Amino acid sequence: MPVGTQGAVKGVTHRDLESLGAEILLSNTYHLYLRPGDDLIARRGGLHKFIGWTKPILTDSGGYQVFSLATRRTIAEEGAHFRSHLDGSAHLLTPEKAADIQAQLGSDIAMVLDECLAHPDSADARAIARHSMERTVRWACRARDRFLALRDGLVPNVVVSNPGQAQFGIVQGSLFPDLREESARQTVAIGFDAYAIGGLSVGETSDVMYDIVARTTPCLPADRPRYLMGTGTPLDLVESVARGIDLFDCVLPTRNARNGQLFTSEGKLNIKNACFAEDDRPVDPGCGCYTCRTCSRAYLRHLFVANEINAATLNTLHNLNFYLDTLSRIRDAIAFGRFESFRVAFHQSFSRLPLDS
Amino acid sequence: MPVGTQGAVKGVTHRDLESLGAEILLSNTYHLYLRPGDDLIARRGGLHKFIGWTKPILTDSGGYQVFSLATRRTIAEEGAHFRSHLDGSAHLLTPEKAADIQAQLGSDIAMVLDECLAHPDSADARAIARHSMERTVRWACRARDRFLALRDGLVPNVVVSNPGQAQFGIVQGSLFPDLREESARQTVAIGFDAYAIGGLSVGETSDVMYDIVARTTPCLPADRPRYLMGTGTPLDLVESVARGIDLFDCVLPTRNARNGQLFTSEGKLNIKNACFAEDDRPVDPGCGCYTCRTCSRAYLRHLFVANEINAATLNTLHNLNFYLDTLSRIRDAIAFGRFESFRVAFHQSFSRLPLDS
Repeated sequence: MPVGTQGAVKGVTHRDLESLGAEILLSNTYHLYLRPGDDLIARRGGLHKFIGWTKPILTDSGGYQVFSLATRRTIAEEGAHFRSHLDGSAHLLTPEKAADIQAQLGSDIAMVLDECLAHPDSADARAIARHSMERTVRWACRARDRFLALRDGLVPNVVVSNPGQAQFGIVQGSLFPDLREESARQTVAIGFDAYAIGGLSVGETSDVMYDIVARTTPCLPADRPRYLMGTGTPLDLVESVARGIDLFDCVLPTRNARNGQLFTSEGKLNIKNACFAEDDRPVDPGCGCYTCRTCSRAYLRHLFVANEINAATLNTLHNLNFYLDTLSRIRDAIAFGRFESFRVAFHQSFSRLPLDS
Repeated sequence: MPVGTQGAVKGVTHRDLESLGAEILLSNTYHLYLRPGDDLIARRGGLHKFIGWTKPILTDSGGYQVFSLATRRTIAEEGAHFRSHLDGSAHLLTPEKAADIQAQLGSDIAMVLDECLAHPDSADARAIARHSMERTVRWACRARDRFLALRDGLVPNVVVSNPGQAQFGIVQGSLFPDLREESARQTVAIGFDAYAIGGLSVGETSDVMYDIVARTTPCLPADRPRYLMGTGTPLDLVESVARGIDLFDCVLPTRNARNGQLFTSEGKLNIKNACFAEDDRPVDPGCGCYTCRTCSRAYLRHLFVANEINAATLNTLHNLNFYLDTLSRIRDAIAFGRFESFRVAFHQSFSRLPLDS
């Protein structure tokens, strides 16, 4: 899922996304709640109508941004008290409030409010992780109750912009496999439309993350999509699919594009490097995106160095194409029973370029 | 001509421009000379190949930016000494050098180096204007000689990237009609492929500008395009066409788009105004551009207020469409012999909106 934080994927239009084959967009509840507000969006008929995107949208719960962006946040059993990073105004995000906001936004998939822990590094990390995991399960119960009440029209003063909205639960448990398994069992017991794995990509090594994913996915129903939140590098996608993941969101392709880092079949390259100043080749000779079809590395480097907006657009088009195309090739490989050979070839190819400096 | 200062129109890709019907692009010699350099672009095969734009390109001479952007510039008969606004390096731009750079860039239309005066407000403005106009004519002679020598392959160490390049002369003379007529006669006598009017839109009122244009165009050949440089508002386009102008370039549609000012058939509006926060209408109900087909004023205001890059893209698409569509409608009106009625209707419609605050 390309990330459209504030209802737009930075640097590319919706028609660009559709031409890239994007089938679903992620948008951020925290940002849209603060600006322009879920009430305003509900009055516009929901997020799809407001932003003019007709394909599916997933909204997060807002929790991750509250924990990372908001100022002076305190977490209690009730929910998370925080101050807006925009104007310092005070807010309370509860599991019920997160469900209400997403009902008003009318996304196709709503996420439950969960608590995201930082990378565990204290002596009592395990106790903290258990406490937090258990609270996340209690919050998930409250979120599900609220979601069902919203669906049944039992919550006054909240507009349900999309009656067909689904709700995903989130597995937590930090880097402790047994806590992850326990979280997964209890979250599945509540009964959601599908399940996500949260709280990874917070500083642990890839191997540790892959292990946690491998230990968690067997505890999630095989007939429901499994969503790994906030991940990751192209190799993370391949390795996580190998461990049972179906759905991803990540700002890497878009954010790194704006910083000049481009993903190719042979690895990463930084377009601002002087070695590209007179390089007439496309970013990735094997890529069919608009940027690679029409722009040389020399031109892209010039645009980046000259601070042209178009550098962001052209780089983002390429990186999103690379991510979406990689997933598309993974789906094909699975369908044709040759995922393992794809996986080996992808690793070999992706480690070829030593140019990301 | 949309303005692609550094080889890109800010916020929109070449395919966007082509879908808008843009038939020619303006690019800035001063900027490209300093970065990435005309030598580098010549080694890429010229500006068309470097930026991937196959339709015509007009390059200015670099003079306007030297007079307005460069630091510590001094003008002598030889040319203009200046220091780069990027790194303070010293350069000399002569009529010959401006022709050489544009030969290396390989644009389809090259402009001669002229001297652009600021708005005249001193007691000796007329003497200054005459002195400057006469120098511009002498520079035009030198520029033409150099251009012909380049075409004949007589200038060593300069790559002629586009053997079919044309060269336009520029009429100066400040706001003095007789100096304008004298400049036009002398410039036409040198013999260029076509002619431009420079040194307007420098702070004079519209009426004064229209008068100068009306006095100048009769002195220019009827069988050659007449180009009014750096102009202007939508009304300026209509009024200048009425006085014999064929070609324009202006940053207004693109720069103002990035500042939130949108042009519509009923006048200008500033999309950041609070009155648009819940306005579900398109920017211009009569417009068929991508932005108006898919985005509400409410969404565009949100993107602008939230500092999203896409605000620049979507606003620019609309404003360029408005400008190009206005010119297209002017061409149709002329072809069907109803330009005068178009002109009256355009004025009436364009003064309708009081929302540009």
